[in-house]
Order: sequence, then structure tokens, then C-alpha cells
Amino acid sequence: MRLADVVVVGAGVAGLAAARTLVAAGKNVVVVEARDRVGGRLLNAGIPGTDQIVEVGGQWVGPGQDRVLGLLAELGMSTYPTHDTGTRLAELGGRTLHYQGRVPRLNPLVLADIGQAQARLDRAARRVPLAAPWRAPGAARLDGQTFATWLRRHTYTAAGRAFFRLITEAVWCVDPEEMSALWAHFYIHSGAGVDSLINTTGGAQQDRVVGGAQGIAEVMAAELGNRLVLGTPVSRISWNTDSVSVRAGRRQWRAKHVVVAVPPPLASRIQFEPGLPAERAQLLQRMPMGWTIKVNAVYDEPFWRADGMSGQANSDRRTLGTVFDGGPPDGSPAVLVGFLEGRHAQVAARMDPEKRREAVLDDLAGYFGPRARSPVHYIEQDWAAEDYTRGCYGAFATPMTLTRFGRWLRTPVGTLHWAGTETATRWAGYIDGAVESGQRAAADILATSS
Amino acid sequence: MRLADVVVVGAGVAGLAAARTLVAAGKNVVVVEARDRVGGRLLNAGIPGTDQIVEVGGQWVGPGQDRVLGLLAELGMSTYPTHDTGTRLAELGGRTLHYQGRVPRLNPLVLADIGQAQARLDRAARRVPLAAPWRAPGAARLDGQTFATWLRRHTYTAAGRAFFRLITEAVWCVDPEEMSALWAHFYIHSGAGVDSLINTTGGAQQDRVVGGAQGIAEVMAAELGNRLVLGTPVSRISWNTDSVSVRAGRRQWRAKHVVVAVPPPLASRIQFEPGLPAERAQLLQRMPMGWTIKVNAVYDEPFWRADGMSGQANSDRRTLGTVFDGGPPDGSPAVLVGFLEGRHAQVAARMDPEKRREAVLDDLAGYFGPRARSPVHYIEQDWAAEDYTRGCYGAFATPMTLTRFGRWLRTPVGTLHWAGTETATRWAGYIDGAVESGQRAAADILATSS
Repeated sequence: MRLADVVVVGAGVAGLAAARTLVAAGKNVVVVEARDRVGGRLLNAGIPGTDQIVEVGGQWVGPGQDRVLGLLAELGMSTYPTHDTGTRLAELGGRTLHYQGRVPRLNPLVLADIGQAQARLDRAARRVPLAAPWRAPGAARLDGQTFATWLRRHTYTAAGRAFFRLITEAVWCVDPEEMSALWAHFYIHSGAGVDSLINTTGGAQQDRVVGGAQGIAEVMAAELGNRLVLGTPVSRISWNTDSVSVRAGRRQWRAKHVVVAVPPPLASRIQFEPGLPAERAQLLQRMPMGWTIKVNAVYDEPFWRADGMSGQANSDRRTLGTVFDGGPPDGSPAVLVGFLEGRHAQVAARMDPEKRREAVLDDLAGYFGPRARSPVHYIEQDWAAEDYTRGCYGAFATPMTLTRFGRWLRTPVGTLHWAGTETATRWAGYIDGAVESGQRAAADILATSS
Repeated sequence: MRLADVVVVGAGVAGLAAARTLVAAGKNVVVVEARDRVGGRLLNAGIPGTDQIVEVGGQWVGPGQDRVLGLLAELGMSTYPTHDTGTRLAELGGRTLHYQGRVPRLNPLVLADIGQAQARLDRAARRVPLAAPWRAPGAARLDGQTFATWLRRHTYTAAGRAFFRLITEAVWCVDPEEMSALWAHFYIHSGAGVDSLINTTGGAQQDRVVGGAQGIAEVMAAELGNRLVLGTPVSRISWNTDSVSVRAGRRQWRAKHVVVAVPPPLASRIQFEPGLPAERAQLLQRMPMGWTIKVNAVYDEPFWRADGMSGQANSDRRTLGTVFDGGPPDGSPAVLVGFLEGRHAQVAARMDPEKRREAVLDDLAGYFGPRARSPVHYIEQDWAAEDYTRGCYGAFATPMTLTRFGRWLRTPVGTLHWAGTETATRWAGYIDGAVESGQRAAADILATSS
């Protein structure tokens, strides 16, 4: 039995940010991580035969993400812009559109439809209080319907609907039929609006982290040194009003507080003793994860750039619905990074890996021509298959969950504290939200123990 | 390390029915139960100072529930009719109605509204294939909306809507805003229609089990003798294609198959090694439990019967929305049994126990007069607070869960089999469904191993 002030469960960015803040305040901290690595949903993968990497997890930061940008500065890390010049490609409502700038040249009726729905969404989203979404005007009505129901009511053209379905898949990796409309509104406000969520330059996909985003976790882990314990899944947390005991196999720690910094479905796997209060337990039953399989195709050269294409493509009829240029400004390595999202990920996960690879490369060739069919390397990551993640990018709230149980997302339960990007108020679901959540959990502990 | 043919996790009716079937076929079976008792969501509570009991969990069986009725006969157990004579009471849309027979004397417009919506619901429900609800006509559309959205579209009066909200609370212990409309349709078909679900005589509340429904589990447990291990929460199941190893604290069993016979949120707490397939894991993230606090108020005598009242009452404006006469035909003990459901349970759970008791007794007095305010005993059970149940009556599917992940409800994963009333095709959510599910899991194992 080892002693500490705080045990942090989970060495993703949330847990590490919590630990870093607590250590800086002089606390004795242990971070216990199930995997043999840090980073959670951030992960670099080496490109075979090179010293280069691709990112198979979260990889972007953007303007307004002040917490992660601040952390990067503190850690002495830097960013570079996502490649964002050249023509974009959109397949929508049966048409294929090459365009530059923000919006494809859809027919005016569809553009008007998308415009009015997006304006309505942004306006209503801004009225959702980030710390208490259940207090939004009409919260219960919004939370009592799926986002699909909302879209069906507020869009008037098939292509307009297809556009928002595509966005839902790209932003949340879920079908709009699964998710609460209030969660969608909260999340849009949390990420500063629809454009902010979907844009490259000026939005959430604007910048990349030099060395790969997992580096954020690795640098924090290095600072922590032997305060970090890897390969140790926590199975049980015993708690009372002034202490906790955290057990992982035969190892055990006693502390004054614990920060559980894992997504809700993983928190559900921990045995709490005594059991969690009913409302917190019910919340954990109602926040499932999205599903994405992320694909990196590495080429000899970024041939699409030479063809004047940005590498950005979206389609409402392909399995690989979202693609970006995944390389640095100099194009080495040359990478197309694509996402199989929601339903598409599920269908693709059932396929034989060779067939899945073929289907993905067919889609890339459909976007960028036949050269896309022959990458030098093909690297994929199915986050729902990962036993210590169980989905990506993040958890979402099913209908009525925020209204009935949302206040338990962040509220500490005695000595139990909750972190993870899903508990953030700003940029929930993003790396930035993870940083916010860890820093907030640490601040809560420091406030009670100082 | 002990050896068995099959380990069953959970000694509710589902697990015990599975074990019983397997033992009868000559299999070596161990049933491992977390609690110090059997019965899961069935539980008797002694009335202090008497040898009588009330039932604080599931308590009814009804016509068409052939599996549980067959099992009762096999176990030599018998039933008696729920007290169902006298006036019923309904508070709906601002009116208080005393009535006999099936339907209160609502205004004709409301009656027509309820009638048409119920007919539509029953008709569509019958078209939902019980073994594959996702193949129903329009399944994805139904599954992509909450039941609240469906009701809003298909009812036209405030009192009609209130009626179906009341039914939703009484049948599922959830708000219609939480639940998939397809799950509602499936469940209605599974329970033979709306009337069948809500009726006393002729419906799911028609009969009681002599000695209390928990007796079903207790008699099966007695048959199993030392094959049953109590007080032993299973924490980990290691599995491969031809064997499983089940660990609970320091105890461990090796077997050819395991039957996991606990509700989905509890199955989520078990660590599987290797991890579950992604689709099964995603399913477990999307089936939360309803919430009910069940109250038994025991009186000197069934005074409401003397007043010509049946003891049955419903209200769309009280916390205690559903009440029945909970006593045997001779009225001894004299019991009013009521349910705080969904939202109402959640709000009541936050109250000081004395205040909650007062609120419940106020409601009973509102229904049955001031004598109801003074029970001899007041016995309540909050199923969401129970760490080894986490809600009641059962789990439900959030929107799009059945369509995307429903086929994983019953499908064995290698040597892992799934039981529990939520996995039943007929009377899912009822004791009968639990029996079906256990017998089906056993039959699956016998089919593969003979």
C-alpha cells in the first residue's frame, strides 16, 4: 500500500494535465494507467523504415483552444499549419463539387437551406450555458429529441440534410439519430460554432503539433517521472469522505483524492466501494462513445498537391466520408488521413482487413485519382476495438441525459473527482477540453485541501 | 481453480433458469452471485412483527406469460389474483375520475385521441419482428426518434399526451424523451399490446405468486444446492474459443461456457479478457436502466376496499404516479403498493427519507383519503441505488441502439452467452422474459456441446 495526496486514473491528456497542476502545487501524485503507454486517444505510429510518424488519434488544435495552446507553450512545443491550399472536393446530394474557399457551389436553394439551418443552430447553441446546458431555453424539448429529429424539422432539402448528416459524422462519429439535439447544441457552443468545428484554417483543424499530438502527453509524462505507473488497469476504488484507496491487481494506493480521468464507458468498468450515487451511476449508463476508424495512407509524394488539390474531401456516399492532407507543409511524409465514421466504421470493422483496405483505397482513388490506390504504407486504427478506449472521438449524451443527469458530469462525489474531455465546458471532445478538465479537477482538489 | 461445464454469472431468475435447464441436461454448473441472496430484481421484505411479506421488486405474472407460468407449475408454486374489484381512480389533464372497467370517462375528444394513438401503436408494434426489431417496416425512422417525438406527432390533445406519458412511466420507469420509439414498439409487441401491458385482470398485473415472486428464485436456488455461490462479485472473465475462466476476488472457475445473466450496465462492469468485440461493447454503452422507487404501505385493514375502491390509482400530477392494492384476496396484510417512476424517482431520491415518506403518504391520502396517511409500516426500495442492480424495472434501448447494435443482444461471443430479461423476445423486461432468456441461453449451450 503506497500513500499519495492524489491518485489520477488514466494517463491521457486530462489525467496528465491534472497531475501536472497538482505536482506544481506541491502535491504528492501518482498517475495509474492501464496501457503501456500514455496519451489515451492521442497516438503516434511510426512509418516503417523511416523516423517519421503519422497520428492515428487526435491530431489537431485550433484558434480559441487556449488551454492546449497555453500548455503547448509551457511544454516548449510548437505547431505547424495543416496543409490547406488548393481545391476541395465535396460529393453531396449526387453532385461532385470542386471548390475553393469555404463553401462548395451548391444550388442556391440548398445553400439557403444549409445557411438558415446553420444560423439557427449557431444562434440556439450560443444560448446554451456551457456549465449548465440543462438551463438553456427550451432545454428539455431539445434534449427530448434526437439531433436527427431536429434536422428533419429544420432542413428542407435532401442535400441540406445530407450536409448536416455528414457534419454529424465528421464532428461526432455518430449518426444524428443517436445523439441528443441538446448535446449537439452544447457541443457546437463549446467549440465556438459550426464553422469553427468544421473549418481547417480558422477552425478546429487549423494546426498540428510538431512531433505529433501524443507528444503533449509524453512530455508531461516525462516531467512526472516515476509518479507514473503504466500497464496497471485500476479495477476498484474504495472511498469515503476523507480518503480513497485505489486498487489495480495486487497494487494499491491510498490517497486523499482520486481523479478519474477516463471516458464514461471506462469509468463504468471500475468497481466503486461503496457504489456510486444513483444519479452518477445513471449518467455513466447514458454516455456512449462514437466510433471511428482512422486511416493514414502514406505515399511517395503528395501528388494531389501537384494536381492543385488540398487533400480535403467529403462525401455523403462514400465509406470514407472525411479526408485531409495529413502531411506537414513540406509534404514529407505525404499522407492522406481519412475517417470511417459512425455507421461506416461499424460496417467497415466487420470486413476482412484486406477488403477494408481496398474499399478505403477505392474511395481515396475516387477523390484523388488512381495514384491514391497505391500507398507505400497503409496504417489504420479502430478506436472502438481498443479495450481501454472503446470508441472515438468522444462520448456523447443520449436524449434527456444532460437534462436529467448532466449536473453529475463534473460534480465531485466526496473524494472522487472526474476529468476527461467529455467533462469540459469549452471544446468538449477535443484535446483542449481534456486540458481544461484536468486543470479544473486539480483546481477543485487544491481548493478543498488548501 | 474449480472446473465446471458452465459458469452462470448472476442468480436472478434468468441465471437460475439457465442453470436449472443445464443441470437437468446433466451439465456441471456453478452459479456465482454478487449478493448474499438470490432473486436479483425480485425481493421479499418481511413485515416487522409478522410472518407476512411484501414484495419490493417484481411481483406480477399474467396471461400469456407461458414460460414463468410453466416454471411455476414445475416448481410446484401457485398464484392468486391481484385484488381488482371496486372503483379505480385516474387524475389526468386536470380532472379526477372515478371509474369501473377499463377506461375512465374522459371527454370524447381525449378518448378518441388515446384510442387512435393506441391503435396505431399496437398495429405498428405487431409489425416489429420480436427476434429482429431492426427489420420492422420503417425501423430506422422509428429508432431514430425518441418515444416523446413519436407521441408528440401522433397525439393531438394534452390529456392524450399525459396519458401516454403516464403509461411510459408506469411500464418502463423512464421519460418518453429518453427511449427509442422502436424500443417502445418492440416492447409493446413483446408484451402482447398496450392493454396487455397495463391491465390488471387480463394483463401483466393479473396474478401474484403465493409466498412472493422471489420464491421462484429461492426454489430454484434450493434445487441447485451447493452449485450456488453467494456473496461473490465476478470481476473478470477470460475467454477464448473453447473455454472461459471466471474470476471473483481470489476465487476462480474454469468452464466451457459462461452465461452472463445480469442487466447490461452490470455486464459493463466486468473486465473481459480479451475485450469484447466492438459492437457488443458499444451495445452495452447504450442500454441504461429505468429508475423506480417502490413503496409498500402496510395498514391495519384495507379500508379502501370497504370504501368500494380497488386500490388502483394513477396520476399525471403526483409523484406517486401508479398505485395498486398490494394485498392478497383476504386483505391481510392490507397493502397499498406504489411506484415513484423515472424523473419522480430521481427527485424523490434526493429528498430526506422522512420528507419522501411524507410526500408519498400525502399522495396516498390524496387518492384514498386521510386514513392512508397512517400506515403501520412503510417499506421502500430504491433500485437505482442498489449497486448490483442500478435501476428498474429493466434496461431500455436509447435511439438507434436496436438498429445498429441490437443483433448483439443475444448473439453468443465465442464461449460467452448472454441472458437477462432485456435479451428476451417475449415479455422482455418481465419475469417471464427472464425465464425465456435463461432457457434460451441454456439451449444454445446444449446445442453446441451435444
